[in-house]
Amino acid sequence: MLADAGLAARVEGEDRLVTAVNTLEDASDGEITFLSNPKYLHALGDTRASAVIVKDDVMVPGRLSAIRCADPYGAVTVAIVRLHGHRKHPQWGISDRATIDPSATIGANPNIAAGVTVSANVAIGDNCTIYPGCYLADHVRIGDDCTLFPNVVIYDRCVLGSRVTIHAGSVIGEDGLGYAPRGDKWVKIPQVGRAIVGDDVEIGANCAIDRATLGQTEIGSGTKFGNVVVIGHGTKIGRDCMFVGHIGVAGSVTVGRHVTLAGQVGVAGHLTIGDGARVAAQSGIAGDVEPQADVLGSPAFPIDQARRSFYVVQKLPDWVKRIKDLEREVKELRKKVDGSDPT
Amino acid sequence: MLADAGLAARVEGEDRLVTAVNTLEDASDGEITFLSNPKYLHALGDTRASAVIVKDDVMVPGRLSAIRCADPYGAVTVAIVRLHGHRKHPQWGISDRATIDPSATIGANPNIAAGVTVSANVAIGDNCTIYPGCYLADHVRIGDDCTLFPNVVIYDRCVLGSRVTIHAGSVIGEDGLGYAPRGDKWVKIPQVGRAIVGDDVEIGANCAIDRATLGQTEIGSGTKFGNVVVIGHGTKIGRDCMFVGHIGVAGSVTVGRHVTLAGQVGVAGHLTIGDGARVAAQSGIAGDVEPQADVLGSPAFPIDQARRSFYVVQKLPDWVKRIKDLEREVKELRKKVDGSDPT
Amino acid sequence: MLADAGLAARVEGEDRLVTAVNTLEDASDGEITFLSNPKYLHALGDTRASAVIVKDDVMVPGRLSAIRCADPYGAVTVAIVRLHGHRKHPQWGISDRATIDPSATIGANPNIAAGVTVSANVAIGDNCTIYPGCYLADHVRIGDDCTLFPNVVIYDRCVLGSRVTIHAGSVIGEDGLGYAPRGDKWVKIPQVGRAIVGDDVEIGANCAIDRATLGQTEIGSGTKFGNVVVIGHGTKIGRDCMFVGHIGVAGSVTVGRHVTLAGQVGVAGHLTIGDGARVAAQSGIAGDVEPQADVLGSPAFPIDQARRSFYVVQKLPDWVKRIKDLEREVKELRKKVDGSDPT
Repeated sequence: MLADAGLAARVEGEDRLVTAVNTLEDASDGEITFLSNPKYLHALGDTRASAVIVKDDVMVPGRLSAIRCADPYGAVTVAIVRLHGHRKHPQWGISDRATIDPSATIGANPNIAAGVTVSANVAIGDNCTIYPGCYLADHVRIGDDCTLFPNVVIYDRCVLGSRVTIHAGSVIGEDGLGYAPRGDKWVKIPQVGRAIVGDDVEIGANCAIDRATLGQTEIGSGTKFGNVVVIGHGTKIGRDCMFVGHIGVAGSVTVGRHVTLAGQVGVAGHLTIGDGARVAAQSGIAGDVEPQADVLGSPAFPIDQARRSFYVVQKLPDWVKRIKDLEREVKELRKKVDGSDPT
Repeated sequence: MLADAGLAARVEGEDRLVTAVNTLEDASDGEITFLSNPKYLHALGDTRASAVIVKDDVMVPGRLSAIRCADPYGAVTVAIVRLHGHRKHPQWGISDRATIDPSATIGANPNIAAGVTVSANVAIGDNCTIYPGCYLADHVRIGDDCTLFPNVVIYDRCVLGSRVTIHAGSVIGEDGLGYAPRGDKWVKIPQVGRAIVGDDVEIGANCAIDRATLGQTEIGSGTKFGNVVVIGHGTKIGRDCMFVGHIGVAGSVTVGRHVTLAGQVGVAGHLTIGDGARVAAQSGIAGDVEPQADVLGSPAFPIDQARRSFYVVQKLPDWVKRIKDLEREVKELRKKVDGSDPT
Repeated sequence: MLADAGLAARVEGEDRLVTAVNTLEDASDGEITFLSNPKYLHALGDTRASAVIVKDDVMVPGRLSAIRCADPYGAVTVAIVRLHGHRKHPQWGISDRATIDPSATIGANPNIAAGVTVSANVAIGDNCTIYPGCYLADHVRIGDDCTLFPNVVIYDRCVLGSRVTIHAGSVIGEDGLGYAPRGDKWVKIPQVGRAIVGDDVEIGANCAIDRATLGQTEIGSGTKFGNVVVIGHGTKIGRDCMFVGHIGVAGSVTVGRHVTLAGQVGVAGHLTIGDGARVAAQSGIAGDVEPQADVLGSPAFPIDQARRSFYVVQKLPDWVKRIKDLEREVKELRKKVDGSDPT
């Protein structure tokens, strides 16, 4: 099965029947576990698993069978899919407690729960599962094979691609913070754009993705968001990005392909982040980021430099003392030099 | 129409019929666009719009008609309202799938969707739109012309003014984090206060505004929140503030009028932020902030000073080297001076 | 009543009948107030309360009766419970607008509102209150005396203990951010673990607690979360912790007992935070934290040291000037010394 996924692997030790995957710590007889992060090497000796997926260079206790593979994390993914599979959804058909506007079009094999609202002129593709409490506003379009967990809200005219998964409580296409100042007051700018989510996107729980003021907010195909990711109006995010969670991106930002934002990152408005850039946790992006850059800090700068700077920050009181010592010493020196100065 | 809004404007070029507003990038023939942020000046040459709203001093390609105005952002707001209007809500009347307690009073032109709960002794004003999944607990009071998007929850006895808009998933009046320590345990303090939201407030998606332990949490009239703004118990926020989004304000904070908190700002408890203060993104407020102050950093300090400090932080390893060089040089000097010292 | 709670107290002044507790600022005749934070001492002179709970050493105006107690915060908690009590929930029995799978088991005195979904094989204990819009997925188990406020979502197979309270919009057990990279793409790892919430836990509004990839995410008994607390997959949090709010903890973190995370704290993955540690607001935990440690900063370090460092950060431009002055002075000295150097 690993070969199907393009993963070369080699089995060591006797054949074992395993029926589940589990962690090194929790696995028991008949289960397979894995070691990917070397930090957990110490737990390998104690595991009660029957087998383990490891890299080539890891010593494995003799009582364990081993699957050796260059990418244990990839291999365990395959094992989990094979042994556990993906989540099975309840089957509701179209619940008579869902509220479906007659102008909506719904594809084959619908699975729409109680308490869902499908508004006027909505179009839903084939094989979509929509959990209770979801709200699809008018003219929303959803592709095939999508899953919306409970209480997801999609505002009017927004579009989801195919194979999109959105976790509970997330909101797509709410109005952004668009106000024009008039004196001390804020005048609302109608947010007449929309939000577009590409194919194969997964969005965590309790996220909020603004519609654009004009035009569209875009989340590129293949991009994955953790929980509580907040995206401002008109921001365009490329394909295959990974936004870890608890993140805030302001409006009119352009993010390239395969960009990683770690936890609690913030991005200011109207900036560009290049393809493949990686932003470390809690960083604040206050200027454009080059493709492939690794940055850290608030404001963020290159990560190697930032780590050196932050190391110094922790020692600043020592450096202050050294500066004061220097000042005293130079003062004494000056006295001596001036005292001995023949002029 | 600009004159009605108090905006003086001048038309240049031939009369064009425009039917929509769009961005510089996305606009096509028959649409009007605008340039407010000089960063996008380069896009003016390429736009396919028929007309553009600009400031007086911007050069406009001859093929475009121009509306010149000192406040293009204000002018485009007027244009969007005129050409696109505000969102039209579905019309539900009072859905028979809403659950309305007979003791509730509901004003004229109600628009209450399926799956809404209106609890005992709730009072709702005229012309309110309440989307599916909203929950109004007992004794909640709501003024006229309010809009609650799906799955908004208002806890018991909380009050919203008139013309309040709350986006999907936001929660008003949940219990704050009120516990008294007793040994190693936390004893819950009943949160018997409430939360009060003024007139003309707009609140983004997935926000959470605690009720007060005693008395009330207050959000001043005209104040606007982005998404995921979290407000602690007993905090009082003044009128016409702008809290951009992904913000956490602790309890018992007093915020003045027209205060701006940028993205991801945090405010510690029991502090005061003066009228007109502006707090830059990701800042942490750990002490009182003077009226009209501009602050940055965690902890925050005056923004000009903070920018200079942060610039130095990025160069700290260089300064460390310069201090070490000085130490070496002073040591050498001392040797020479002491060596040549006749005493 | 204070004695019942283990709080010694002494009454000063005449007997007064008080019917409510209120803040120093808002209290009126017939109400009792309290002073715990010395910051509000100035408000004691102006309060219109009839009585006040204070520490032994606080001067109280003669017109006020006083209850003197070493722990005014604990005492006012008792007073609020006695005079106001805990929230009374509406009584729905089992609403016929709830959707209950016939395979679910529900304990005594159920209180399940309209729009709730209880899925297959769910088990709910006695005396549970479940507000509208909550979703309990298949095989969820909930103990006795729990309260789920509106629109709470519990994913399949997750477990809540007894006396658990979850505020509106929070999500328990959604999939974590588990993907294996394959080329430029992200391959989803089925999240086959679950989340376990202990007894006496209270969780604020709009939180999100991931299920584990394998095994379980755990929230220890007695732990309290504020709003928008985000917990990654496989993280295990000990008993009686206090996570203030707007917090992000990554996956596979181990947090000890009675740990305090202040507002907007972030914790990176695979770390350990020891018992009794306290993390100050906006800090970023990037390495293990010792038991009982007090830390601050991003990355965090011991709080006393951090405060000294941050004080220096604010003065860095001055220190730069002092370094430059030293360099100039040393250069001059060297000139003099070299000039006067007889060698």
